[in-house]
Amino acid sequence: MPTLRIALAQVNSTVGDISGNAAAIRRWSRAAAEAGAHLVAFPEMMLTGYPIEDLVFRNSFIEASRRGLATLAADLAADGLGELPVVVGYVDADGPAAISSDAVPGSGRRDASALLFRGEVAATYFKHHLPNYGVFDEDRYFEPGHDLTVVRLGGVDVALTVCEDVWQAGGPFTTARQAGVGLVVNINASPYELNKDDLRLPLVQRRAVEAGAAVAYVNAVGGQDELVFDGDSIIVGADGSLLARGSQFVEELLVHDLELPAAADDDPAPLPGIIRSFIPKNMDKNPETQGAGIAERLSDEQEVWQALVLGLRDYVNKNRFPSVIFGLSGGIDSAVVAAIAVDALGPERVFAVSLPSGYSSEHSKDDAADLAKRTGLNYRVEPIQPMVDGFLANMTLTGLAAENLQARVRGVILMALSNQEGHLVLTTGNKSELAVGYSTLYGDSVGGYNPIKDVPKTMVWQLARWRNTQGEPPIPENSITKPPSAELRPDQKDSDSLPDYEVLDPIIKGYVDHDLGRDELIAAGNDPALVDRVLRLVDIAEYKRRQAAPGTKISGKAFGRDRRLPITNKFREGNAFSPL
Amino acid sequence: MPTLRIALAQVNSTVGDISGNAAAIRRWSRAAAEAGAHLVAFPEMMLTGYPIEDLVFRNSFIEASRRGLATLAADLAADGLGELPVVVGYVDADGPAAISSDAVPGSGRRDASALLFRGEVAATYFKHHLPNYGVFDEDRYFEPGHDLTVVRLGGVDVALTVCEDVWQAGGPFTTARQAGVGLVVNINASPYELNKDDLRLPLVQRRAVEAGAAVAYVNAVGGQDELVFDGDSIIVGADGSLLARGSQFVEELLVHDLELPAAADDDPAPLPGIIRSFIPKNMDKNPETQGAGIAERLSDEQEVWQALVLGLRDYVNKNRFPSVIFGLSGGIDSAVVAAIAVDALGPERVFAVSLPSGYSSEHSKDDAADLAKRTGLNYRVEPIQPMVDGFLANMTLTGLAAENLQARVRGVILMALSNQEGHLVLTTGNKSELAVGYSTLYGDSVGGYNPIKDVPKTMVWQLARWRNTQGEPPIPENSITKPPSAELRPDQKDSDSLPDYEVLDPIIKGYVDHDLGRDELIAAGNDPALVDRVLRLVDIAEYKRRQAAPGTKISGKAFGRDRRLPITNKFREGNAFSPL
Repeated sequence: MPTLRIALAQVNSTVGDISGNAAAIRRWSRAAAEAGAHLVAFPEMMLTGYPIEDLVFRNSFIEASRRGLATLAADLAADGLGELPVVVGYVDADGPAAISSDAVPGSGRRDASALLFRGEVAATYFKHHLPNYGVFDEDRYFEPGHDLTVVRLGGVDVALTVCEDVWQAGGPFTTARQAGVGLVVNINASPYELNKDDLRLPLVQRRAVEAGAAVAYVNAVGGQDELVFDGDSIIVGADGSLLARGSQFVEELLVHDLELPAAADDDPAPLPGIIRSFIPKNMDKNPETQGAGIAERLSDEQEVWQALVLGLRDYVNKNRFPSVIFGLSGGIDSAVVAAIAVDALGPERVFAVSLPSGYSSEHSKDDAADLAKRTGLNYRVEPIQPMVDGFLANMTLTGLAAENLQARVRGVILMALSNQEGHLVLTTGNKSELAVGYSTLYGDSVGGYNPIKDVPKTMVWQLARWRNTQGEPPIPENSITKPPSAELRPDQKDSDSLPDYEVLDPIIKGYVDHDLGRDELIAAGNDPALVDRVLRLVDIAEYKRRQAAPGTKISGKAFGRDRRLPITNKFREGNAFSPL
Repeated sequence: MPTLRIALAQVNSTVGDISGNAAAIRRWSRAAAEAGAHLVAFPEMMLTGYPIEDLVFRNSFIEASRRGLATLAADLAADGLGELPVVVGYVDADGPAAISSDAVPGSGRRDASALLFRGEVAATYFKHHLPNYGVFDEDRYFEPGHDLTVVRLGGVDVALTVCEDVWQAGGPFTTARQAGVGLVVNINASPYELNKDDLRLPLVQRRAVEAGAAVAYVNAVGGQDELVFDGDSIIVGADGSLLARGSQFVEELLVHDLELPAAADDDPAPLPGIIRSFIPKNMDKNPETQGAGIAERLSDEQEVWQALVLGLRDYVNKNRFPSVIFGLSGGIDSAVVAAIAVDALGPERVFAVSLPSGYSSEHSKDDAADLAKRTGLNYRVEPIQPMVDGFLANMTLTGLAAENLQARVRGVILMALSNQEGHLVLTTGNKSELAVGYSTLYGDSVGGYNPIKDVPKTMVWQLARWRNTQGEPPIPENSITKPPSAELRPDQKDSDSLPDYEVLDPIIKGYVDHDLGRDELIAAGNDPALVDRVLRLVDIAEYKRRQAAPGTKISGKAFGRDRRLPITNKFREGNAFSPL
């Protein structure tokens, strides 16, 4: 059996940065060549970044992708890497005519994989299965491919596939069995969700058995707006056995030797739906066997923390912000955001502001200062009372209007510091608060990014406790243990207006993440009156969420593009014409 | 030839208000019966409202729709309307098993049309063509139907279709020809875009010729978040001749007599893909012929104005706001919003606040007061300087930070008045400003709804001039003619930082609405340096738009769900790897 040394480049790319992404491909290809690889594979849409969303409708973007691909092929050859087959994702279209502005959206545009060799595009494959659920809108953007591309590389037949193809039975992996390939390369941009890695491995194993071939699954790493790609690349044998597995959240090159069956037939009979290419690749066996190893799995807390750190770091750096700023209240949410920000950017790029009012407790101010000292971030105090009094002297505000005023003055101060000093403002509302609308629009919700947007309050505490076990504890114990409070009126506690988060979070998870109705939530053991109250709160807060900052997705259903609800919506669970 | 008196109920429904929508169906069905109709048709998803978006993933919602439909059928019979066939849109699913939470999203869920008769659901049809472009995500939500439903009503065969079916050739209208039907009923929730009515008529005419049958096209009326449904219902003969046409933006019942061919065969042979029902409907000819007439077309300005008025009115009323509030600067944008709001809600529900700063000109204050006097809206003055000074006394802010502070203090005041008094805050940025980011985030962008979000600045002026010709002019002439200014520093003008709107708007239209690239925009005659500058401004303002208030869509591509771009995006037209 021939031995193919494959390199999976589990790396980061940036949407729209075609020249930067091409430079990364050249850099990692050189590393693969130096490691003696016979083939290197990069993630889905590596050249353009993923997801490119409506950029796909611009012909200029499609042309830039195609031109970038041709240039990359030539540059690789000029780099002396022409003999290394390079599999890379990009966006293509069927032809200039098919992508005129008048064409039906999606028509003719392709989520494509190319194999580059000797300065040329030697083969292309168009993704068959287009996900159109959750955060994905690929039916909006692409036309599905129908043919399988099989490349004979030296003596081994290798099939190309893309991402969602691996999630569907009976697709190109079945065709790959008909074609008798030895290896299926599956390139991905698969966003992180908690425990998604537990789904990926059995999936890749099933497809390997379906294809009767080894499968090499390479995933992107990095943050793109609300998504984080977590790597977790996988190589399995034709029998489904796990051979190699990458880490999560870090760039790496997995180099692994695969013994693969030689292609049976020198001149295979043409089969419908299969396009063959022949690459005269020298497949000399390397003297020493190379195994990529199997990376250890992370704990849930590690996984989520690393996702949040990477999501924030890439949002800040890819958008070229020098630094971040946020209000540090002494409470748990802003404390966790501070720790994430320091882990992501280093303390010197993190600016925290204590914004005490007349209702702020001494312990709040102390806890904020304590965190600043522990982490070394930049810290200052801006009391809000003079500005609040300026409004109250000129307007008659009571109750909620007066409470919200304090949050909004804080928002104005943070935005003023952002404008004056150039920081990105972070907002620090957790998923539980976003769900029930426990926030002030244009107040504490102010900010360009929210690192914990998709983290329920109970998980915020869990993450804080876990992070404090990793080296020096950044978060003051008091911030973790004290009862949460917005401190917008004397002695206010979250528990004045909300149930305990241990009770609230499971209802939110059922209603938001799993689309359960009132009956199902009650059948699951939740208190009926509480269910009614929480569901109503979630329903009427939709208008706030529509204007919320983006933030890192870590769950199966995040607020944002993952969950699309009307604002104007009179459906209330438990009313007439909803289930009894 | 039998004469069928058809009634098209071009009416308003509310998302999620199943009992309220059912009540409307009963009310309009009674009117149809009183007019002697043999058949009444309601819009797509009339029972549930449209679009229901991710509500479709909740089984409780699907069940509420099905239960609501069965109850409606029984109630119609109890009302004495059992003998009137009622065609109504609703959401259905293939069965409880098919819509478990574990199922692939969209699987088994249907955008459905039912024919109700004698207290029962006598026939159903599932939409074949699911739009998944622009604002539509129907591949996310629904499974397409494949069968055509043909109902023999008295002696006439009537086929049921839904919305997008009429936009596609070779679909159910071709099957309808095979089935030899006399009439195709097409129920719609087709959102307004400027001049879309000019597309609809030839489209319906083409389908009639394709089917060889009369077509009755009924569209919804009303606002739902960013969409406005404009009615414009149409009846054409089998030869494509226009027989009747409804108004735009108003609820009405079009009652029209159609002479239709009798069904040829008493016992038609079964054909694949065609499901037949037989309704023993008495089709006595009414003694006097009824024609619905052809409503006159509106001018572009009338069309847009009515869309904006209806969009705002329905957002306010369906979300049960007592009133609206906004900053009235004396400039053209807030003046036009004020006039729209007064037309939508009456002056007593409209609250405008003059928020002068030290930089506000006398004419601004005078123009705002003048508008208040002309329209009779509620008006007050809240000078912002004391609050601005409160911040400046405690923070060192210069340049843009100081300018934005003024806009943000205005935002805080408006939100405080909203919290204190219960008004919905309107924001008044036009499409040109949104495109180039000429606004202050959490400042003048504060608000729950933006009536002119999709109106380019040049069209704002055009609308103002037109509205002033309709009865007493609400808008001061000075607000229309003076050069636009944000008045955030002494003698500031928009033209200090932006090109003239007459030059800017066509570039925005090309880039945003038509996805043209740099080369195409220059080839269209725009100045290259200006194109580069505008495109860059549009690109870097994406983060502001992501947090913008919803607002009424009037163009082919509105900001919001219609245009989905990444925030993190390094693609710059004209750079390397974009067209030369």
